[in-house]
Amino acid sequence: MMKTIPREAGIIYEFNKTNQPIATVASGSIIRIETYDCFKNQIDSEEKELTELDWNQINPATGPVYVENAEPGDVLKVTIEKIEIDSQGVMLVGPGLGVMGASIEQMEAKILPIVYDQVLFNELRIPINKMIGVIGVAPAGDGVNCGTPGAHGGNMDNKMVTEGATLYFPVAVQGALFGLGDFHAAMGDGEVSVSGVEVAGAATVTLEVLKGETIQQPILENEDSFTQIASAKTLDEAATLATELTINRIVERTGMPISEVTMLMSAVGQLEICQVVDPLVTVRFVVPKWLLTQMNVTLIG
Amino acid sequence: MMKTIPREAGIIYEFNKTNQPIATVASGSIIRIETYDCFKNQIDSEEKELTELDWNQINPATGPVYVENAEPGDVLKVTIEKIEIDSQGVMLVGPGLGVMGASIEQMEAKILPIVYDQVLFNELRIPINKMIGVIGVAPAGDGVNCGTPGAHGGNMDNKMVTEGATLYFPVAVQGALFGLGDFHAAMGDGEVSVSGVEVAGAATVTLEVLKGETIQQPILENEDSFTQIASAKTLDEAATLATELTINRIVERTGMPISEVTMLMSAVGQLEICQVVDPLVTVRFVVPKWLLTQMNVTLIG
Repeated sequence: MMKTIPREAGIIYEFNKTNQPIATVASGSIIRIETYDCFKNQIDSEEKELTELDWNQINPATGPVYVENAEPGDVLKVTIEKIEIDSQGVMLVGPGLGVMGASIEQMEAKILPIVYDQVLFNELRIPINKMIGVIGVAPAGDGVNCGTPGAHGGNMDNKMVTEGATLYFPVAVQGALFGLGDFHAAMGDGEVSVSGVEVAGAATVTLEVLKGETIQQPILENEDSFTQIASAKTLDEAATLATELTINRIVERTGMPISEVTMLMSAVGQLEICQVVDPLVTVRFVVPKWLLTQMNVTLIG
Repeated sequence: MMKTIPREAGIIYEFNKTNQPIATVASGSIIRIETYDCFKNQIDSEEKELTELDWNQINPATGPVYVENAEPGDVLKVTIEKIEIDSQGVMLVGPGLGVMGASIEQMEAKILPIVYDQVLFNELRIPINKMIGVIGVAPAGDGVNCGTPGAHGGNMDNKMVTEGATLYFPVAVQGALFGLGDFHAAMGDGEVSVSGVEVAGAATVTLEVLKGETIQQPILENEDSFTQIASAKTLDEAATLATELTINRIVERTGMPISEVTMLMSAVGQLEICQVVDPLVTVRFVVPKWLLTQMNVTLIG
């Protein structure tokens, strides 16, 4: 029977090597992890006084999960088998938050019922687009709060992190110390308001340790593509990092000249925005499998 | 019979109000405009000495075309009915060019045959993805060289500028002074090497003057979406500009509170990269028509 880790078992607000594991699993395990929304479910009605919101309880991730046999230098492969979401989401805007923060006069929350495959926004209907905002492992050095993305994963807010996707994280500490949270029922690239349709839920994931692979920032694989994710202080820096990591990796794995790989990625690779509103911003470089198959190469695995 | 403007009729290297028109057309006209590739077809073989390349002949646009009745403050609506491309493309990389410029040791060009709907790259086959890199009108003030994008359009290198798309440009001078060039047989978002699959060709476009609309930066419409395009010095600035223009425009046209429009755009709008390699970079904010239809609003028209 599949193991479920309830959110009451333990949450973290920081991916940190000193966190105590709430569960230990063998490599290859499938587990179901339950999560709070990014406000730790504090906003349960639009009348809630947002001034009372405890900002120390933002972006909880359920975890950490200790994965046996994961050693620094390995890769943790996380396949997202299923995402379940609650029947109610919430969005937030406020002064100083997100791209429009200078034009928003007061903090405002909106409760959004989720009925079947639609989010209800006033009389508007938005198809759900389930995704996981925060997912990652503990970094080697200081902890990183769960609102910030980085080489360890974290708050990447990448809409490609959805059912059927596989993520690869660089393992930095014994046991990897995996966690996830901050699901969205829908979110567009950019996440411009600072929130998606924030929702509690549960994710069923397979956790597997890969030996003999080295990566610097998370990689995502789905049916159509391999994607290099990268976070940095500015979009320009993140864009450069994601592009360089992708091209250098393909050069290393194929032996092709960097000039030709650069041309191919310019013609076929897609440089895309994940989010622009977290303390570091996140970009991805997407390479279609129809090209990689012809080149007889993968980004990982 | 449809009017064809051959590229020999005149090219510009700068969108400039002082350029002499090479043709004058009535609003509503359909015309076919022939173009050189972005190197003015100087690279016709891989053996070509790239040191001999005349960098003053880069990014020619065929034009300008004077559109009757176009006045400053109007909008020029340009529908791309058809894009024809030559049977051979070219890509270029070089030291200091594009995202990988620091890792590229010498300038190198590659000739790429285009056979039916595929670009041939060594033994690899890339599906064509025809688009127009440079398209725009003359700005009000100083001229802008055709390698740079801006409020007037220009070198936006937006892969959505393809058959079936409609562009809207702010008219800044009498007659609009429209021009286009720099076609790509294929290009990915980012255009990371500094070139797409550069190719000569011809575009059939309908040019129409719209009165009573005001826009600040180009807007694109296709079957699925309205898209606000914006160019700036950094991706972060361009991303903010594209998002603000979109949200403010929807607020003005619907009367909805900015808080709710911001939430909707965060849940459903897509902030995407056009290119990161020109003197200004370009971003787009894409809003799906399935949402705008429910809201009973368009971005323009």
